Amino acid sequence: MSHSNTGRVLITCPDRPGVIATVSKYLYDHNANITKLDQYSTDPNQGTLFARFEFELEQLTERLPELQEGFQTTAQQFSMEWKMVSADRRQRLAIFVSKEDHCLQDLLIRWRTGELNADIAMVISNHPDMRPIAESFDIPYHHVPVSKDTRLEAEEKHLELMEGKVDTVVLARYMQIMPSRIIERYKNRMINIHHSFLPAFIGSKPYQQAFDRGVKLIGGTAHYVTEELDEGPIIEQDVYRVDHRFQVADLKRIGRDLERVVLARAIRWHLNDQIFLNGHKTVILS
Amino acid sequence: MSHSNTGRVLITCPDRPGVIATVSKYLYDHNANITKLDQYSTDPNQGTLFARFEFELEQLTERLPELQEGFQTTAQQFSMEWKMVSADRRQRLAIFVSKEDHCLQDLLIRWRTGELNADIAMVISNHPDMRPIAESFDIPYHHVPVSKDTRLEAEEKHLELMEGKVDTVVLARYMQIMPSRIIERYKNRMINIHHSFLPAFIGSKPYQQAFDRGVKLIGGTAHYVTEELDEGPIIEQDVYRVDHRFQVADLKRIGRDLERVVLARAIRWHLNDQIFLNGHKTVILS
Amino acid sequence: MSHSNTGRVLITCPDRPGVIATVSKYLYDHNANITKLDQYSTDPNQGTLFARFEFELEQLTERLPELQEGFQTTAQQFSMEWKMVSADRRQRLAIFVSKEDHCLQDLLIRWRTGELNADIAMVISNHPDMRPIAESFDIPYHHVPVSKDTRLEAEEKHLELMEGKVDTVVLARYMQIMPSRIIERYKNRMINIHHSFLPAFIGSKPYQQAFDRGVKLIGGTAHYVTEELDEGPIIEQDVYRVDHRFQVADLKRIGRDLERVVLARAIRWHLNDQIFLNGHKTVILS
Amino acid sequence: MSHSNTGRVLITCPDRPGVIATVSKYLYDHNANITKLDQYSTDPNQGTLFARFEFELEQLTERLPELQEGFQTTAQQFSMEWKMVSADRRQRLAIFVSKEDHCLQDLLIRWRTGELNADIAMVISNHPDMRPIAESFDIPYHHVPVSKDTRLEAEEKHLELMEGKVDTVVLARYMQIMPSRIIERYKNRMINIHHSFLPAFIGSKPYQQAFDRGVKLIGGTAHYVTEELDEGPIIEQDVYRVDHRFQVADLKRIGRDLERVVLARAIRWHLNDQIFLNGHKTVILS
Repeated sequence: MSHSNTGRVLITCPDRPGVIATVSKYLYDHNANITKLDQYSTDPNQGTLFARFEFELEQLTERLPELQEGFQTTAQQFSMEWKMVSADRRQRLAIFVSKEDHCLQDLLIRWRTGELNADIAMVISNHPDMRPIAESFDIPYHHVPVSKDTRLEAEEKHLELMEGKVDTVVLARYMQIMPSRIIERYKNRMINIHHSFLPAFIGSKPYQQAFDRGVKLIGGTAHYVTEELDEGPIIEQDVYRVDHRFQVADLKRIGRDLERVVLARAIRWHLNDQIFLNGHKTVILS
Repeated sequence: MSHSNTGRVLITCPDRPGVIATVSKYLYDHNANITKLDQYSTDPNQGTLFARFEFELEQLTERLPELQEGFQTTAQQFSMEWKMVSADRRQRLAIFVSKEDHCLQDLLIRWRTGELNADIAMVISNHPDMRPIAESFDIPYHHVPVSKDTRLEAEEKHLELMEGKVDTVVLARYMQIMPSRIIERYKNRMINIHHSFLPAFIGSKPYQQAFDRGVKLIGGTAHYVTEELDEGPIIEQDVYRVDHRFQVADLKRIGRDLERVVLARAIRWHLNDQIFLNGHKTVILS
Repeated sequence: MSHSNTGRVLITCPDRPGVIATVSKYLYDHNANITKLDQYSTDPNQGTLFARFEFELEQLTERLPELQEGFQTTAQQFSMEWKMVSADRRQRLAIFVSKEDHCLQDLLIRWRTGELNADIAMVISNHPDMRPIAESFDIPYHHVPVSKDTRLEAEEKHLELMEGKVDTVVLARYMQIMPSRIIERYKNRMINIHHSFLPAFIGSKPYQQAFDRGVKLIGGTAHYVTEELDEGPIIEQDVYRVDHRFQVADLKRIGRDLERVVLARAIRWHLNDQIFLNGHKTVILS
Repeated sequence: MSHSNTGRVLITCPDRPGVIATVSKYLYDHNANITKLDQYSTDPNQGTLFARFEFELEQLTERLPELQEGFQTTAQQFSMEWKMVSADRRQRLAIFVSKEDHCLQDLLIRWRTGELNADIAMVISNHPDMRPIAESFDIPYHHVPVSKDTRLEAEEKHLELMEGKVDTVVLARYMQIMPSRIIERYKNRMINIHHSFLPAFIGSKPYQQAFDRGVKLIGGTAHYVTEELDEGPIIEQDVYRVDHRFQVADLKRIGRDLERVVLARAIRWHLNDQIFLNGHKTVILS
């Protein structure tokens, strides 16, 4: 399905009467047919409005710059943060991975079957192990070792590799802490996946802790990366039911299955411009 | 929470540019602040648009008639089916029940704790059994026996009991077929709950059939009642995981739990004016 | 369904060869027909074995004392903790409640419809509010106020009320901390229900915290009560999916629905002697 | 984890007192330590008993033939269908596929990461499309076209390719009807995956039908293949929640994700000897 004439307007602004009407009218006046509109307001009176418009417009590619240009007056009037994009632009992903390959493999397959509206620009790892997998999909693989002594060097290398080539970063079981500079550079464009449990277990060997505590649900959480480890805005979560018969190895296996689908959903929504940030939480519009 | 100044506009019309903009502007021009807007279009070009606006307006009760009156021009312009209502009006429910009490009890309790934005006008049953339950909640109970010979008489009685007193009918495990005349009278205002399975089992003793087939999921479905038995537009469904250890009695017990929550969700959405009909299917807007 | 000839043997012991065989043979030699057997071993060699036998035996009531007596040799041989009981004995419950009635009402209805194989001996509350509800089901209601000054007095009163009349205690949204003495007296016989989230939120207003963090799943956890607040062995958990459109009030409403079903399942398993304690975690046998 | 000393006894027989005791004693007498025992009886008195024992025995490989030999007396005494196997034997799979690759790819990856305790002996397809995928995993790929005229020829070819090389057949979105002869040859050893819905939709374009009907849950079902199309014993099912915003393409995408995990679970249980047939339904023991 080609989206070459499908555009999107993504808006975050103080909520007051007339925002939706004005944007709708702007698109209407430019012969764009709104095909999807989802919005959410945190509070009727003093809150924040999030809105996602999808529209059809003949010759969108040619007319987009002009449409963006003309929108600036409206945007200023309502103090909007906004983006107007073509739905068929392909974001370029960098996938970071360490030694666990389940998320990487899953993403590569989804990419090959056309499920991801993106290009995978590169795979970056602190280990050499995943090279054959990446290369069997003809994806460039960069092995950048990270140790105490080479941390800064690795950071430079990462930034250099991605400079101008990467729109969104996916941490697909990358077991190193991202330095602030990279987090800042890819703010709200870096997605991580990790396990999660009821209750949460801090520290090492979380599956062993979950096993010891006898949890009945295993979970996975995808979130944007912020400086607070694993505390960034939650994008998606899911769980699977377990019981006392599940050994630690079973819990890990189920965790892997959850991580695959939860991460894939989060990336999909991100690529479709469906995710908005409301302070520390996400608003997922359709 | 009082909703006395909260209004809703509910719209179904052919989708063409400007609908949302025009309605938004209408509300804006009348000093109504749109606090929620959800819409769905089946097709960009020739499809149907469904939209639900929630708005705040000072002295809504006094101003609603005028607001409705003024909206007619807009509605005609876009060939809308529409409703403009106050969110705090309380619909009056009739609950039909036979011998299984789990849904009735659940609804009565939700009503008593204020979860249902409705009044329960009456409970109607073809059996006398539930009278003490209804009356312990001070709800009028009407025992209307139904047999081959009294079918027509019962139909008359039902219509008479509900005339002018009931907005929405809930079939909370009512094991009689509703006659066409009542279905027609309460079209899209009569909600039924029934079991459902993967795969579906037609005929009698469905739980026994599900047990015999070894299904791994037990389900419940709430739907609007149409003349085709159990085939009306689906409002909500849910499932619960079972295994070979579950006996028929267990499946029934789980089925009851599912029916309770699925029916309660369906009624809640109906009372909140969230359900739109798109031919034979529902659109649930938030 | 009468269970008058159904018995159960519940065993916890060091796992070594022959335990199941010996117990099976014991029952077999006494003409008991094993109808269900579920077992779990934490470790083949040095672990703990948990086993639940259900059997049919003519005139069980009369023969149970003799069957128990005779089993002692076997039990000692394998260093068992064990119980041999009739499946149709009815445990007596005390339900503690504060101001939220959803769990109480749900349990009362399940009890009235025969879903709970138990008698509800009493409802105890630190508030007078639930009296009419309990009394509409003809259940004795004891209002025992708890304040800083009356804490010890209340404790005495609780113990006195339950002495000889209560087998299992259910905390159905009881918002007071149970004193050690009562916890000790009803060890592994006191079940609590509380909310739970991914991730967990410590402190007050957990639903507000969950809302602020934008969680995508709301959960409920039933557990045995220990001295560590909300940290006792988990019996059951469940979750429901939410999104940014859910307000704090919605999360609370969904939390109530979860608490109802999760608590009911936990109590059901407890009454059916299905729950075994493996250190700090539960083993649920069928 | 090596299972070289782990054995399994799998039993189906008429339920009468002493079965479990006798088998346990047999294993005990041969120094085998039972590490897992799960059993299920359809009926206390006249029913069928299913039991799965897992045990540890030094030098199992050498001693298994003797252990099997000696068990025959016990097996005859109780009219058992039975199997005694080593847990670390690797079954050989044939995967049939047509043009949809999601299940094939998923299985290949699970195989490569060691999640499947099996060898993939071959991929067979009525189309040439999947050859590169299979061969990138070094799996033999056989393209066997199937048309009206070549049906019998294809059948012969299939049987010939698998003869002596395949223990279990997986239909991973293979869109041809299996002939009776192959079904019979691989009875209870051939697993299929298909979509499933509440309610079920017969005929072509099921996702379109599900969309037209507005279902709120999309499902997948894995089952053993019998002559009745898609009606064989259900092994596993799962669902995912959808709403009116999901287009047919979305439903298909979600269906693919469900099919992957449901098929993988079914195969895993089959390879672990956890699935028993109770007439037309499965009993999954742990």
